[in-house]
Amino acid sequence: MLLFPAAEYAERLAKTKERMHEHGVEVLIVSHPANMNYLVGYDGWSFYVHQGLIVSLDCDEPIWFGREQDGNAARILTSLKEENIKGYPDHYVMSKLRHPMQFVADILRERGWDARHIGVEMEGYYFTAEGFQTLRRDLPKAAVKDGTLVVNLVRRIKSAREIEYVRQAARIAESVMKTALDVIAPGVRENDAAAEVYKAQIAGTPEFGGDYTSLCPIMPSAERTSSAHLTWCADRKYRQGDIVLLELAGARHHYHCPISRTLFLGEPPAELRKIADAVVKGLNETVAFIRPGVTAEAVEAKWRESIAGTGVHKPSRVGYSFGLNYPPDWGEQTLSLRPADATILQPGMCIHFMPGIWLKDFGFECSEPLVVTENGCDLFLNFERKLFVK
Amino acid sequence: MLLFPAAEYAERLAKTKERMHEHGVEVLIVSHPANMNYLVGYDGWSFYVHQGLIVSLDCDEPIWFGREQDGNAARILTSLKEENIKGYPDHYVMSKLRHPMQFVADILRERGWDARHIGVEMEGYYFTAEGFQTLRRDLPKAAVKDGTLVVNLVRRIKSAREIEYVRQAARIAESVMKTALDVIAPGVRENDAAAEVYKAQIAGTPEFGGDYTSLCPIMPSAERTSSAHLTWCADRKYRQGDIVLLELAGARHHYHCPISRTLFLGEPPAELRKIADAVVKGLNETVAFIRPGVTAEAVEAKWRESIAGTGVHKPSRVGYSFGLNYPPDWGEQTLSLRPADATILQPGMCIHFMPGIWLKDFGFECSEPLVVTENGCDLFLNFERKLFVK
Repeated sequence: MLLFPAAEYAERLAKTKERMHEHGVEVLIVSHPANMNYLVGYDGWSFYVHQGLIVSLDCDEPIWFGREQDGNAARILTSLKEENIKGYPDHYVMSKLRHPMQFVADILRERGWDARHIGVEMEGYYFTAEGFQTLRRDLPKAAVKDGTLVVNLVRRIKSAREIEYVRQAARIAESVMKTALDVIAPGVRENDAAAEVYKAQIAGTPEFGGDYTSLCPIMPSAERTSSAHLTWCADRKYRQGDIVLLELAGARHHYHCPISRTLFLGEPPAELRKIADAVVKGLNETVAFIRPGVTAEAVEAKWRESIAGTGVHKPSRVGYSFGLNYPPDWGEQTLSLRPADATILQPGMCIHFMPGIWLKDFGFECSEPLVVTENGCDLFLNFERKLFVK
Repeated sequence: MLLFPAAEYAERLAKTKERMHEHGVEVLIVSHPANMNYLVGYDGWSFYVHQGLIVSLDCDEPIWFGREQDGNAARILTSLKEENIKGYPDHYVMSKLRHPMQFVADILRERGWDARHIGVEMEGYYFTAEGFQTLRRDLPKAAVKDGTLVVNLVRRIKSAREIEYVRQAARIAESVMKTALDVIAPGVRENDAAAEVYKAQIAGTPEFGGDYTSLCPIMPSAERTSSAHLTWCADRKYRQGDIVLLELAGARHHYHCPISRTLFLGEPPAELRKIADAVVKGLNETVAFIRPGVTAEAVEAKWRESIAGTGVHKPSRVGYSFGLNYPPDWGEQTLSLRPADATILQPGMCIHFMPGIWLKDFGFECSEPLVVTENGCDLFLNFERKLFVK
C-alpha cells in the first residue's frame, strides 16, 4: 500500500532524527498530518481529533497514536508493528474530563521517556495550546520544547519520486484551470463553476486520479477579488465586466501543484491590463533568475527590481515552498520569498512563485510553481501567463 | 451582504458576553473560523494564518485582526467599523522573527486591556500553542485562560433562520447521497465517483447553491471501511463484492447537514445484513426517544438498550452536535451522545445521530441528523434507512 519504497521512508526518518539531534530534541511528537504521512504513510481525515507519531532517537520505528476507531487506518496504510499502534478510547475525544495528551504522556512514561527533551509542533494547527499544557502538567520531569519545523525542513527537499507526484498533480492543475476558464461565463452561477472545478480536481486525468486540495478553490469575483482568500459566492451569477481570480491546484496523493490565473469577462479596464503586463514581466524575469545558491530574499529583490517603475506595489511575500499537505494550507511554513528570509535555494525545493496583487477594489493573480534544479529551475506547468479575457 | 439581520448578530454577541461574564473572561480572543462567522459574518479561507476577533465586555463591537491582505474581506463581509479592522503586515506571517499574537498583544495594550482576564481557544485548531506562549510572554499582567467553548456553547442552540439553512443543506445532502449511490458501480474509478459527489455538493440545488463541507467526502471501500476516516482510493476501481461507506454532507452558507449510508455491490454477506438490521432498528428506536429534557447520555443508553442482544457492539460515541462550521470538522465539540455527557437536550440543538460501526474487516454506517423541537425532534432528511444493495 505504501507510495514510496521502504528505503525512502527510512531515509526520511533518519534525516528527521538528525535534525532532532541538532535541535536537542530526544522525542518528537509529530501532529502535522503531512508530517505523519511523510514519515510513515498515514493518510486519513482523522486530524480533527488528536493523533500523531512519537519519534524517539532511541527507537527504530515511530509510534502512532490516535483514536481507536482510526487504528485500522494505521494498520492498513503503514508498515508499523502492532505494538506501535496505540488507539485511545473514545472517552478521550472532545471531553472536558480527559485529554488525549494524557494518553500520550502515559505512553511516554511506559517507555521511560518522561524526563526527556520532548519536541512538539508549537505552531502546528492540530497540536493545540491545551495539548501543550496537558503534556507539561503530566510530564513534570520533561523539557517540552518547540519542534514545529523539524520534519517540515526535511520535507522541503523533495526526492525524484516526490517531484514526479507533483508533476502528475501539475497535469491535473492544468485540467482544473482549463475547466475554470471554460465554464465561467456571464449568467453562470458561481457555485456551478466551482462545482466543475472540484470535479476536475478529483477526477484528475485518465492516468492520474485526483485528491482533495489543502485550500478550497479560491475563486472570488468582482469586488471580492480585492481580498486574498475569498471564494465563490453561492447563487450569484457572473456578469459582464466581472474580474475573476482563480487560485487553484491539482493534488496527487496529497502532493500539490498550485496555479493562479485571472479571467476578465468583457473588455478589461486599462489599469488592469497595465497591472497584468507588469506582473507577467516580473514573473518572467524572476523565474529566469531562480537557481540554486541564491537566497529567498534575493528572489524577492529581483521581483521588486523587475516591476520597478510599473506602478505595481506588492507589500506581501511573493512565494513559498509547497508540496505534500493537508488542509488548511498547501504551503510548508518554511521558506517565504520576502525580505529577511536568507534561506538558500537548493535543488529539490518546490516553490510557488505567487505575486498576487490585491488592491482596494480588485486584484490580479498569475503564478508559477517550479522546482529548483542543479542549474536553475524547472516549471511544472505549461500554461500561458497572461490576463485571460472572454 | 450579511446572511442574518443585524439584530441576530447583536443577540449572539450579547449571549457571548453573558457567557464570558460567567466564565470570568473580560476579553475573549475568538480564533475559530465558525465563531468568527457566527459573531460578525466573516467568511474566508484565511484561517491558515492567525486571525480572530477580540471581544471585550466593555466594547460594543468586536475587533477583527488578520493578515493585511485579508482586511478587505472583513470590510466587504462584515459591518465592523474601519477602526475595528486591524490588518497585520506580511512579515508576521509564518516567521521565526515575529508572531501575530505580538500584534494582538499590541492592540490589547493600546485599548488598555493588557491586565485583563483574557480567554483564548486553548483547544481550537487555529490558535496554536505558540500563540498562547507569545500572548503570555507579551502580556505579563494578563490572566490568560481557557475560553474554547464560550462561543461554541452559544452556537449550540440554533435560531429559526439557522435551522432553515440546515434544511437547505439537507436538500443538497439528499442530492449528494443520491449521486453517490447512482454513480458507484463495479469498474468505476473511486476518484471519479468522488468527483461527482463533490460536484453535487457545490452545485447544490437549483434554489440553493452549495458550499464546501468541513470534512471531505468520507467514502472508503472494501477493507478501508474498517476505519472511520479513510476516503476514496485514487485510481482503484470498485469491484463486485465491495462494501462502500458514505459519510457525506451538504453545506449551505457553511451550515451543514451530514448523512451517512452504506452501499454493497453484489449480494451482501449475512453478517453485514445482520448488523444493518440491528443498527437501523437502534436508529429508529433512538430517534423516536429524542426530545427536550433528556440527557445526551440517556440517548446513548437508549441506543445501547435497543441493540442489546443483536451482537452489535459500539464502543464510541453515537452522535454529536453540528451546524455552522469550517474544516476540519462539522461537529461543534460541545455535545457527545455517550456515557458521562449529562448535557440536557434543548429545542434548537442540531444533532447528528451517527452510530458508525467499524469492525476488524469492514464497517457499516447509517445516520440521521435532526433538530430538537419543543416536543420531540424533527428530521432534516427524507432518505431511506437501510443497507443499499446494487
